[in-house]
Amino acid sequence: MADDIFTDLEGVFGNGISAGIKPNKRDLAYIYVPNAVACAGVFTLNKFIAPCLTYTQKIMKSQVVKAVIINSGNANAGTGKIGLANAKKTSQHAARLLNLKPSEVAVASTGIIGVQLPMDKVLSGLDTLLANASVKEGHAVSDAILTTDLCDKIVHVSCKIGKKNIVVSGIAKGSGMIEPNMGTMLAYLVTNASIPQAQLQVILQDACDESFNMISVDTDTSTNDMALLFATGEKKFQLVSRVEREAFQNLLTEACQILAKKIARDGEGATKLIEVQVVGASSRRDARKVAKLIVNSPLVKTAMHGEDPNWGRVLMAAGKDPEVKFSADKLSLFFNEQVIVKEGEIVATREQLAPVLKKETIVILLDLNLGHGRATAWGCDLTNKYIDINTAYS
Amino acid sequence: MADDIFTDLEGVFGNGISAGIKPNKRDLAYIYVPNAVACAGVFTLNKFIAPCLTYTQKIMKSQVVKAVIINSGNANAGTGKIGLANAKKTSQHAARLLNLKPSEVAVASTGIIGVQLPMDKVLSGLDTLLANASVKEGHAVSDAILTTDLCDKIVHVSCKIGKKNIVVSGIAKGSGMIEPNMGTMLAYLVTNASIPQAQLQVILQDACDESFNMISVDTDTSTNDMALLFATGEKKFQLVSRVEREAFQNLLTEACQILAKKIARDGEGATKLIEVQVVGASSRRDARKVAKLIVNSPLVKTAMHGEDPNWGRVLMAAGKDPEVKFSADKLSLFFNEQVIVKEGEIVATREQLAPVLKKETIVILLDLNLGHGRATAWGCDLTNKYIDINTAYS
Repeated sequence: MADDIFTDLEGVFGNGISAGIKPNKRDLAYIYVPNAVACAGVFTLNKFIAPCLTYTQKIMKSQVVKAVIINSGNANAGTGKIGLANAKKTSQHAARLLNLKPSEVAVASTGIIGVQLPMDKVLSGLDTLLANASVKEGHAVSDAILTTDLCDKIVHVSCKIGKKNIVVSGIAKGSGMIEPNMGTMLAYLVTNASIPQAQLQVILQDACDESFNMISVDTDTSTNDMALLFATGEKKFQLVSRVEREAFQNLLTEACQILAKKIARDGEGATKLIEVQVVGASSRRDARKVAKLIVNSPLVKTAMHGEDPNWGRVLMAAGKDPEVKFSADKLSLFFNEQVIVKEGEIVATREQLAPVLKKETIVILLDLNLGHGRATAWGCDLTNKYIDINTAYS
Repeated sequence: MADDIFTDLEGVFGNGISAGIKPNKRDLAYIYVPNAVACAGVFTLNKFIAPCLTYTQKIMKSQVVKAVIINSGNANAGTGKIGLANAKKTSQHAARLLNLKPSEVAVASTGIIGVQLPMDKVLSGLDTLLANASVKEGHAVSDAILTTDLCDKIVHVSCKIGKKNIVVSGIAKGSGMIEPNMGTMLAYLVTNASIPQAQLQVILQDACDESFNMISVDTDTSTNDMALLFATGEKKFQLVSRVEREAFQNLLTEACQILAKKIARDGEGATKLIEVQVVGASSRRDARKVAKLIVNSPLVKTAMHGEDPNWGRVLMAAGKDPEVKFSADKLSLFFNEQVIVKEGEIVATREQLAPVLKKETIVILLDLNLGHGRATAWGCDLTNKYIDINTAYS
């Protein structure tokens, strides 16, 4: 159902309000899972990491996080010692209002880099927001974390594992500065399964590698990327068997891929979703690299925007990394199932290719014919609107 | 002098004509150095390399190349076995007309990928072009190799080495698909020095690493990048001493940097030249990586285009590679000498930064304060015009 939202899960609360960080838009939110049995997190690999992430990573080492405070409109990044103190202050203030320890309250920020958080607005906003923390306004949370996003990104999937109905439900934001490694991208997920912390962390990392870490809007990795997964523990479910573990892994990966594709499709200025499937690579690592190179190429992205059958740019992009095994004589290339190159030779005309590019989703399939490595990446076209949005962001 | 051109050198010939590969523009040219004592070449590292480069790399292993045939309007890339046969045919036909061996005639192409060369036009064009090969129309060559370039790229520098006046003179083209590794970018240089082949090759590679390999318009590496340097041998000069060798290396690097900056400034749609100087890195390798990450970031490029003092994007870009040593607490950042971050703390306002961004050349200086590694990279802003050019290239 389109209206399902993560706060529908038992023991999951959240709300979002306008605290005045941005003009006339929700900009401050919380997610609160008081009885969480585990909380896993994956963070940006950018070395210029925001202080709020430094803080959150630190507290997650010792404690199961039960809540997260998220603001949009200001990334609290590049803000030095003051920024770190502000992250801490936010966590401490929220913890007091929620009757938690500060080390149980994560903080996340997204927005402009290099400007200090307006702490008066954040703290008084928290007073209003957390006056009653037992509400289930998940859609308000989803709205409050958006920045240049044009639409919300919500997922709610479930499957039977054993006899239990296991749900994964979540939200994400992200539109620019997207090549997650992890990607600003924020994603918050909850599951009703009871999974131990260490196992949940591994499962979340794997799901992110196959979803958020395979999308790119503009190759830029945010300083603030964060994905959190709370386990409410409602369904006592220990994932003892390999089959059950895999079933949960697949469910979570599916949820993350749905969010990831929504982010790619909503890339700043985008009009098309581009899915790149690389098969026949000599390794999975090579396949991932090639898929990312194609989805990141500005010349591929502009050609797709122009519905221009300039397929040579895809092969140009595929060959960019000198360390990837590649043979121009062996590869085959398809656009939305229309073959264009077969084992190195051109087998269709540009005119034959043109009609398939009119679709809103373009699936580019490159078979390197060298081995069994495969990977899929998602991105979007590059348009004048991306330029317009980003020449005057602040 | 602005009018100096490479064919001014003794024993260097060239011309360019319209052969009908493109409508109403010069598109076929030759450079001919009948008494060349050496010819060095640096080529793209893209694995999806064009057949003309495969051919040229092969002949250069056994022979000193004396001439190169260059066409624009068609890259002869992604063209399989027919493409390779066409490259060979072009070389053979030109060799007959010039009384050279085919293995002395290099071929280069630039333009659209995935379309076979119109060989009837190429061969009859060569008949016209080489009917008299002893002409010195260097400017016509420079014009014939351009594609989306808005201006020609010409360099002519000289210095005294010992008692000899050594000249390096050349031309280049390139505007999009530019992150040379080597970069489509074509560059042709001649020197009047007499330098042995093996030594010339090392010197050219070093010069390219400090110039063409440090520019980026759009991160896309062409399938057809090529730089050639002919030595006419006029000045018998063996580069025996280290001092003399270094003097020649510096002269050639300077010439290549002048061409590289002209390419970056003429990047498709560009309105500004961006120079990124990274100092204080823990190694030269790290400095090169960080400089390239900054110059390649679409969010940095759009901010510079919008003259938006969104300096946080520079640090975001600088931190993207998890393998680079980086400390957010230690770094200092300057734009055109205006300090904005000092040892990790913000020391100027966005308002103070705004005026310096109005200049046409933006020099971004990042001091990582970790060691002695340094590097400079050049790029350009990202504009609507880049999108317009590339959504409908073909």
